[in-house]
Amino acid sequence: MTSEMRQRMANAIRFLSADAVEAAQSGHPGLPMGAADIATVLFTRFLTFDPKTPDWPDRDRFVFSAGHGSMLLYSLLYLLGYGDIDIDEIKRFRQLGAKTAGHPEYGHAAGIETTTGPLGQGTGNAVGMALAERILNAHFGDDVVNHFTYALVGDGCLMEGICQEAIALAGHLKLNKLIFLWDDNGITIDGKVSLADSTDQLARFEACGWQALACDGHDHDAIASAILTAKASDRPTLIAAKTTIGFGAPNKAGTNKAHGSPLGADEVAATREALGWPHAPFEVPSDILDQWRIAGLRSSVRRKEWETRFAAVDAETRGEFERRMRGDLPSGFIEAMHRFKRQMNEKQPKVATRKASEMALEEINAVVPETIGGSADLTGSNNTRTSQTRPIAPGDYSGRFIHYGIREHGMAAIMNGMALHGGMIPYSGTFLTFADYCRGALRLSALMGIRVIHVMTHDSIGLGEDGPTHQPVEHLASLRAIPNMLVFRPADAVETAECWQLALQSRAAPSILALSRQSLPTLRLDEHDENKSARGAYEISPASGEAQVTIYATGSEVEIAVAARAKLEATGTPTRVVSVPSFELFRRQTSEYRRALTDDDSLKVAIEAGIRQGWDELIGRDGIFIGMTGFGASGPAPELYAHFGITADALVAAVNARLAETQVADED
Amino acid sequence: MTSEMRQRMANAIRFLSADAVEAAQSGHPGLPMGAADIATVLFTRFLTFDPKTPDWPDRDRFVFSAGHGSMLLYSLLYLLGYGDIDIDEIKRFRQLGAKTAGHPEYGHAAGIETTTGPLGQGTGNAVGMALAERILNAHFGDDVVNHFTYALVGDGCLMEGICQEAIALAGHLKLNKLIFLWDDNGITIDGKVSLADSTDQLARFEACGWQALACDGHDHDAIASAILTAKASDRPTLIAAKTTIGFGAPNKAGTNKAHGSPLGADEVAATREALGWPHAPFEVPSDILDQWRIAGLRSSVRRKEWETRFAAVDAETRGEFERRMRGDLPSGFIEAMHRFKRQMNEKQPKVATRKASEMALEEINAVVPETIGGSADLTGSNNTRTSQTRPIAPGDYSGRFIHYGIREHGMAAIMNGMALHGGMIPYSGTFLTFADYCRGALRLSALMGIRVIHVMTHDSIGLGEDGPTHQPVEHLASLRAIPNMLVFRPADAVETAECWQLALQSRAAPSILALSRQSLPTLRLDEHDENKSARGAYEISPASGEAQVTIYATGSEVEIAVAARAKLEATGTPTRVVSVPSFELFRRQTSEYRRALTDDDSLKVAIEAGIRQGWDELIGRDGIFIGMTGFGASGPAPELYAHFGITADALVAAVNARLAETQVADED
Repeated sequence: MTSEMRQRMANAIRFLSADAVEAAQSGHPGLPMGAADIATVLFTRFLTFDPKTPDWPDRDRFVFSAGHGSMLLYSLLYLLGYGDIDIDEIKRFRQLGAKTAGHPEYGHAAGIETTTGPLGQGTGNAVGMALAERILNAHFGDDVVNHFTYALVGDGCLMEGICQEAIALAGHLKLNKLIFLWDDNGITIDGKVSLADSTDQLARFEACGWQALACDGHDHDAIASAILTAKASDRPTLIAAKTTIGFGAPNKAGTNKAHGSPLGADEVAATREALGWPHAPFEVPSDILDQWRIAGLRSSVRRKEWETRFAAVDAETRGEFERRMRGDLPSGFIEAMHRFKRQMNEKQPKVATRKASEMALEEINAVVPETIGGSADLTGSNNTRTSQTRPIAPGDYSGRFIHYGIREHGMAAIMNGMALHGGMIPYSGTFLTFADYCRGALRLSALMGIRVIHVMTHDSIGLGEDGPTHQPVEHLASLRAIPNMLVFRPADAVETAECWQLALQSRAAPSILALSRQSLPTLRLDEHDENKSARGAYEISPASGEAQVTIYATGSEVEIAVAARAKLEATGTPTRVVSVPSFELFRRQTSEYRRALTDDDSLKVAIEAGIRQGWDELIGRDGIFIGMTGFGASGPAPELYAHFGITADALVAAVNARLAETQVADED
Repeated sequence: MTSEMRQRMANAIRFLSADAVEAAQSGHPGLPMGAADIATVLFTRFLTFDPKTPDWPDRDRFVFSAGHGSMLLYSLLYLLGYGDIDIDEIKRFRQLGAKTAGHPEYGHAAGIETTTGPLGQGTGNAVGMALAERILNAHFGDDVVNHFTYALVGDGCLMEGICQEAIALAGHLKLNKLIFLWDDNGITIDGKVSLADSTDQLARFEACGWQALACDGHDHDAIASAILTAKASDRPTLIAAKTTIGFGAPNKAGTNKAHGSPLGADEVAATREALGWPHAPFEVPSDILDQWRIAGLRSSVRRKEWETRFAAVDAETRGEFERRMRGDLPSGFIEAMHRFKRQMNEKQPKVATRKASEMALEEINAVVPETIGGSADLTGSNNTRTSQTRPIAPGDYSGRFIHYGIREHGMAAIMNGMALHGGMIPYSGTFLTFADYCRGALRLSALMGIRVIHVMTHDSIGLGEDGPTHQPVEHLASLRAIPNMLVFRPADAVETAECWQLALQSRAAPSILALSRQSLPTLRLDEHDENKSARGAYEISPASGEAQVTIYATGSEVEIAVAARAKLEATGTPTRVVSVPSFELFRRQTSEYRRALTDDDSLKVAIEAGIRQGWDELIGRDGIFIGMTGFGASGPAPELYAHFGITADALVAAVNARLAETQVADED
């Protein structure tokens, strides 16, 4: 192929992008125009993929971390012949219902490997995909999994702290099949990068164990040469490809004016002139489109070779790989969970739910080989490591446990990447209060609807002496607020197992398990296989007669609710206790079921060692809430519960006071 | 002083710490024992402070970033003679009500410059303090402000992404009076740092524009020499002080067993033996205590010199500096706000509230010289820069605007540090959705109760085409969930000015201003000076008669509520609209006031382009909510409002359907 043809192929990206932004009167033309050469080289000469079988498991992964330049990706998908993005979708860029959303959204079209936009997330996703590749490679061998992961990253991605967390782990683990292509254009929204940053990025990446290369991002051969060097490295590689943002636009190129708004009709016309592109908007000359389509077919050969290799693998391994990639759980899973629950019913352990989680995981990890555990340096506190999960180490990816380091945000984004890669179910651990540190990545897991599971322990003031910085108060509410996020707070070992089962079965929503530091008795003594936690809320302790009081509780406060019930019953007040392990699942129940639990005439009380926000949905404005109204304090846990009035006695007193009031009112 | 005496002084820290942890049966002995030598050198030979005048404005700042080792700080404060921490407080370590909380808490005792514990936050705080120092120095001169900022940081602080954001900005801005002392002990909770990290930290800091030094963290002279070199640098400095965690403990030193649990009676006894410390728990021999107390008096000379210099400054400057350090607003402030509101009443602009915020800021910044603006690379979108606020640049700190770069978490932590330093009111900007990225630091600002103001624009699906990654949906709820955080969502230019006034007047709580991207009409046409937003909620549009319907709304949805009211009134349904700029302030009103707005018999409707969570507090379970139930979408804003049913027509239809139902029920 001539270098002129390569240049014209890149220009096709430039004008599709500029014209789509112009049509939408909204969007980011600068990045696609600047990075078009990088993308052309990568997609026509290196990336292994197949537009006609886009979900081929051993394809190279391409993460478009600088998601605001989405038209680059859409242009590529259209030009290469991915079926989901045709020219009409390009024309509908940023319109309601289009696959070509403002930022690339996972699930909208094949070829979009992850949702990006919030900067830096893609760097973590790419590390996760590269790590997943190595883990699967260690298990299934070179014939089945052996591919590269590329990420196109911008200045903003590199400035975000999440990127540091991700690259440090990638460098430590020597993920040498990971390559970052940095669109080094020196421009951000506010102007020059030098307004806010003087970092020597190459030196920084080298300090983190990466190979770092630099090249002219408009010189196709230089880009190709850098990628070749990167592919041969024993370390991950950063390629700083120096580019001009808005390349080709005579007046706006190289400035922040090209970043985030349409160039304007005049400037687009001038760009056509400057780059010698006489074609109408959205028109790609057939010789160029043909070359792109040929590039699209280029690596179908590789896919076919892979298929041949894969067919030669033994049937059992093949079946196991396919099961994992489909995301189906193994057949023995349900029975193992039932067995475990029966054991808990029998033994009735008094353990913290974090310990119960470890016990459940010991069973789960024995039968579900695709779980990959981890912790952000709280392994012994989160109890996420079991006998089966040897740590993954630099160069040895045969383990099943990741020491993520003290990097919560990176961890969550890496887990997203692992789940997106497929073939594994990542779960991890940190303290619930540090959900705040990884919320950006948590939200994206919910938006994408992927199966990641976060074990978040020390879930209340019950953690005691570490004090208010470490005591979650508003976190249950703030996590329940995230759409499509399953927040579980189990009350005992039985519920913990049930919630783990639900989290593992949840293929289209991430889960958070909020678990106690302190020991809790087994409260679920009914022996059967039904997963009651799947209801979201259920009566765990019935009233002796028609309930005059209903107490709703979660997690460690169910024990207190049950104690309060006993006291109320003893003084002649029929009281039932409803355990609420998941607000989200309760909302999915039939209205009959929900009404039976919330719409009777009983006095409604909720107890949770967090804030009230969200509870009115169950107890109404007039319900009594026993919980927190502000931050916690440092002290032994039992003293804190007494200090903040989260006790059976306080609950009983509040109920009796209200019942007395009501009686007086009735008598009036 | 002999080196033996220095060693014994350090041992005093070690045993106070180990014994306090032992008494509490909870805590972290390893860091204080490991970093005792660093702290001894710093506090006895370098740090400028005065235990008897701990709030002396030009003292050096010491940030204890690795907050879990809190006993190091408490030991120092006791030994140096700070009045708040006596030996009884040391004995009550981690007990409910003690000043010696599990992690250092700002406000508990003089000498605790910031609340730390969540790792990495202290690095941002220290950068903020060092930046504040330079800004005040540029304004008030060397005679008034000229001090160093030191931070003791651990491995965990360095791994957190927030640290990268903070150090990159510090290096860029050449904050040469900032010195990080890294307790380089190679151990984290899970074990060796090498389990999860291989970063060459010195090279990484150098890549970020820092000087990086290494020394033996148990060699007092080596530490002193490094600090001297650091003080002479034209760049910020990292000193990697190689230490042994749990120094002196014969069996646990150098391992993670010394990190986060009591050493145990036997090991403490063995440590006494090993270090030659025959004294009883909490007993510090008088010769050692004397030496510490002398060290405490060491720099009172410096304070007196400063006082002499300060007294020689002209009275006006002195008064201004004192006003700023007290945190009082200047006398012209209120009048300027009234004047601005009257202008808005008159002009009735139709502008986005982000634009209204810029207009208000133009007035505020003219009369309040201590505001320091900024943005995380969204200056033109957040509208946080006004004519008065020239950017701060490397070596030139005379400006009033900070280009924070794409570093939301770092920005928020740096702002916390600036506010803690005193003398300025930091405000900044990002998109509301990226509140998720800085939540760790937001929470700490609320816990500490400090005045930082976050302008968070593009506060709903109203941002349009950027799509769901950029559209806040759950963010208002999740931010309102944070205790002691004021979340404002003004409806028009008048309310925006009122909310700015409240945020600036809020000395003990941080504020978030959620502002629209899209234009909104001026709705508040009543001309008077009362700050109605201070009520949290108030009737902005009364019903024609006794209200049959009450519509509660915030921000951009108040316009829709007012339009719906007009339609309902036109068909004979008396309807009032209540604007709710702040849930938190509404909760502070008298019960009479609150009842008047929420406890009448009208049908309750709320409209907000976010989720329902939290609204039941006003409208009850039976109230109608018009808003979002899931993530947004990419498309033009008006189409999105229609698509998600957040319109006057949808509201009216829902109300009419409910009224018809109720009527049928009444007739039954």
